[in-house]
Amino acid sequence: MLKEYDILCTSDVSYNAIVFKCLADYFLFVQDFAKDRYGVPQMVQSQQKLDRVLVRVQKLTPEKADQLIWVRARIHTSRAKGKQCFLVLRQQQFNVQALVAVGERASKQMVKFAANWILMGSQFIFTHSERIVHFSAPDKRIFVISQAEPRLPLQLEDCVRPEGEGDEDGRATVNQDTRLDNRVIDLRTTTSHAIFRLQSGVCQLFRDTLTNKGFVEIQTPKIISAASEGGANVFTVSYFKTSAYLAQSPQLYKQMCICADFDKVFCVGPVFRAEDSNTHRHLTEFVGLDIELAFNYHYHEVIESITDTMVQIFKGLRDKFQTEIQTVGKQYSSEPFKFLEPTLRLEYTEGVAMLREAGVDMGDEEDLSTPNEKLLGRLVKEKYDTDFYVLDKYPLAVRPFYTMPDPNDKKYSNSYDMFMRGEEILSGAQRIHDAQLLTERAIHHNIDLEKIKSYIDSFRYGAPPHGGGGIGLERVCMLYLGLHNVRQVSMFPRDPKRLTP
Amino acid sequence: MLKEYDILCTSDVSYNAIVFKCLADYFLFVQDFAKDRYGVPQMVQSQQKLDRVLVRVQKLTPEKADQLIWVRARIHTSRAKGKQCFLVLRQQQFNVQALVAVGERASKQMVKFAANWILMGSQFIFTHSERIVHFSAPDKRIFVISQAEPRLPLQLEDCVRPEGEGDEDGRATVNQDTRLDNRVIDLRTTTSHAIFRLQSGVCQLFRDTLTNKGFVEIQTPKIISAASEGGANVFTVSYFKTSAYLAQSPQLYKQMCICADFDKVFCVGPVFRAEDSNTHRHLTEFVGLDIELAFNYHYHEVIESITDTMVQIFKGLRDKFQTEIQTVGKQYSSEPFKFLEPTLRLEYTEGVAMLREAGVDMGDEEDLSTPNEKLLGRLVKEKYDTDFYVLDKYPLAVRPFYTMPDPNDKKYSNSYDMFMRGEEILSGAQRIHDAQLLTERAIHHNIDLEKIKSYIDSFRYGAPPHGGGGIGLERVCMLYLGLHNVRQVSMFPRDPKRLTP
Repeated sequence: MLKEYDILCTSDVSYNAIVFKCLADYFLFVQDFAKDRYGVPQMVQSQQKLDRVLVRVQKLTPEKADQLIWVRARIHTSRAKGKQCFLVLRQQQFNVQALVAVGERASKQMVKFAANWILMGSQFIFTHSERIVHFSAPDKRIFVISQAEPRLPLQLEDCVRPEGEGDEDGRATVNQDTRLDNRVIDLRTTTSHAIFRLQSGVCQLFRDTLTNKGFVEIQTPKIISAASEGGANVFTVSYFKTSAYLAQSPQLYKQMCICADFDKVFCVGPVFRAEDSNTHRHLTEFVGLDIELAFNYHYHEVIESITDTMVQIFKGLRDKFQTEIQTVGKQYSSEPFKFLEPTLRLEYTEGVAMLREAGVDMGDEEDLSTPNEKLLGRLVKEKYDTDFYVLDKYPLAVRPFYTMPDPNDKKYSNSYDMFMRGEEILSGAQRIHDAQLLTERAIHHNIDLEKIKSYIDSFRYGAPPHGGGGIGLERVCMLYLGLHNVRQVSMFPRDPKRLTP
Repeated sequence: MLKEYDILCTSDVSYNAIVFKCLADYFLFVQDFAKDRYGVPQMVQSQQKLDRVLVRVQKLTPEKADQLIWVRARIHTSRAKGKQCFLVLRQQQFNVQALVAVGERASKQMVKFAANWILMGSQFIFTHSERIVHFSAPDKRIFVISQAEPRLPLQLEDCVRPEGEGDEDGRATVNQDTRLDNRVIDLRTTTSHAIFRLQSGVCQLFRDTLTNKGFVEIQTPKIISAASEGGANVFTVSYFKTSAYLAQSPQLYKQMCICADFDKVFCVGPVFRAEDSNTHRHLTEFVGLDIELAFNYHYHEVIESITDTMVQIFKGLRDKFQTEIQTVGKQYSSEPFKFLEPTLRLEYTEGVAMLREAGVDMGDEEDLSTPNEKLLGRLVKEKYDTDFYVLDKYPLAVRPFYTMPDPNDKKYSNSYDMFMRGEEILSGAQRIHDAQLLTERAIHHNIDLEKIKSYIDSFRYGAPPHGGGGIGLERVCMLYLGLHNVRQVSMFPRDPKRLTP
């Protein structure tokens, strides 16, 4: 049977449904002159090797109009009209229209075979033979590669409807939980493909930029024996006869690499936070883009290295991912992301002054609340026309114990946050590289020295001055694209209420 | 004080130790004509920004001999001889010798200051001023940037001693647990630096090769709600009020991306196995390099894509990491890694025949034991002169339920393992892309269908034929370099008995 059909196709419709619903057609099938040109052949089980090239929808240029080509794609929609059936063939973000019309090469039964899918669902993978009907080629074949359930839990058209439109004219939209519950279908949309291609690009730009700067990629363990910052918000793991934890950050290990003379390191990997935060920007598992480097004289060398990396990412996205940015923009409109070169760096006291001028009442050593962060983002955008900036020299009191104090003013520290569209995407600092000072600061923070012994011991055999930071990949993607929920940019998001799929 | 000293240095010796041990010198210090040229100044706390360029040891070419340069490096060893002190300055894998001799620019006290470190330990980070003594430059300064404990728990020289040498002549060697317990020092060796630079290279070559082939990088969750292969060897995580698991592989998620039309995907990330295996090649957490791709007609398209990726990695290592390979070879000698183009592919039955010919008694559908894998590796090396090959068409009975059966012989399957120097580095297969066949196979394997419902459901809405595999990063590095223990190529290894550092 396989040799006869040559090529195989797929549909959303179960074979049984066809058998029953189209019984009349199947009786006619045996007398059908086109019966070898369509059907549901055997599952692809690697029965044979074929040299045949399948053409990508993206590559279908007018000069291919007269060539014999084969395409494998999903049927995005199909529409029957008299003796014709129009199909929209989808391959990732690219579509092409195909036509099956009764004639010399296609029988009435064959058009019905194509058209019938309409009744039962709109998506299937299939192989369309020879010429693309879009090009009015008369010779066609159509075979099903993989079947699908007749009813989809959600429609792709509804998933990509521009924000707000559905509500106005009564057309369906799909809520986020339904999308995430059926992520395997939701991920097929042009918007999802654009988002995750861009995310892949962010990782690549991050790594390539740092590799060019002489950084080494490291792999750090996720299962750890002790929670380095005191034990709050840590997931516990059963580890044979004992307990362990999931790392909240690779920071200790990055720092150990610096103490081991790796000089400049980065890593990309999962970061776990057992925080019961159900917000638009918190996940219990996210991807950290982490940097740590030794510096010579001043931690601003670290800030410059990180901001330059971010600028290279922004430029790379702007220059290489314009299609993806436009695609996402069709569904979720936003202002293009703006940034300055060199990156704007404000001191914490300047930020506080701007907020006070805008009517906010806050103390010198008070941390920024989320609303104040956002307000400051807007004020900075108005004044400096940038969506990306660094807030430097945070109050020492609001930073972790390992943060290097400011050498001149004990109220402040050599630490910084970085913001995109008014939301924090990175937190970092010069770290204390001296075991004695580290011990003093841990005592000041009432941290049990026994629990952080191995951390402090790492600095006992000579450590260069160093600093770094951790970037949340999902936040970078969300804020760069002007999206509103971090779950949109996590393929399979995890939060306190979601562990599936 | 800082302005006076200009630049800051480090040592392995605690300041107090110096104060007491060298009290006599310090009395002389106040009258010392060179007193501004050495010392232990304030900790680098980003007090000032300096434009001064620090020269890398690696860049110290003869033409720099007469230039004023500054270097920051560790003191690898120091040796006093009369009025001179010879220092070996180390920066990662590069060394240079420096000399401090009593003269116009250096006082007797200053030479003693440099020489004294000898007595108390051999490692410290320091800044050596102006000319490198190695170049007989008369004008010197030396300052301590970061101090270190006077006694190191292990000596770097002992850590890099070639295998076997220590035992013969009574010189110390360091056992693996001592190294791992003090990993921050052990990682400073030239061997460790070479290993982890090469590992970073493997990741980069893997990703670059796949990106060039049109693959998209994905991020998959590590916390999962159900163990897809029945629940054995899985770590349990406390997840708020419920329990979750650590992913044993990203396979389900890779496959979901294929069902979501991403076509070709890869990911690099931690993989967790709660196996109580204490062997040279098992870790409870390792880094998986995972690939999954849709194919057209035959799963050998997948094999070819993966083997070509491996060959690109081997070539990249051979061409770009020769220094690292040589460095590791000085301590652990091994034959250069050999591979063929195209990669050798043997069928399982051929492998079994070769083993039987060598006297092994085994059944047709029996899995390969570890000794037999190694033996087969040696037989293949003898016959084909390659350290890398694919064993294809494993018996269906020894593979997971989601493996596609062979279309012609029900005893076998469309699955394969890949081997380096006779050890498995990848396991993969054509996956079943049909929900109904998947259900049948799961029932055959006595797997609870309820537990794998979401996995099976992923294939209900049309899935292209696809396959892939997962590569163990540490094993690739270990076997490429001809090392004997996977812990040598994991920065911070995790096994049933080790959770620290």
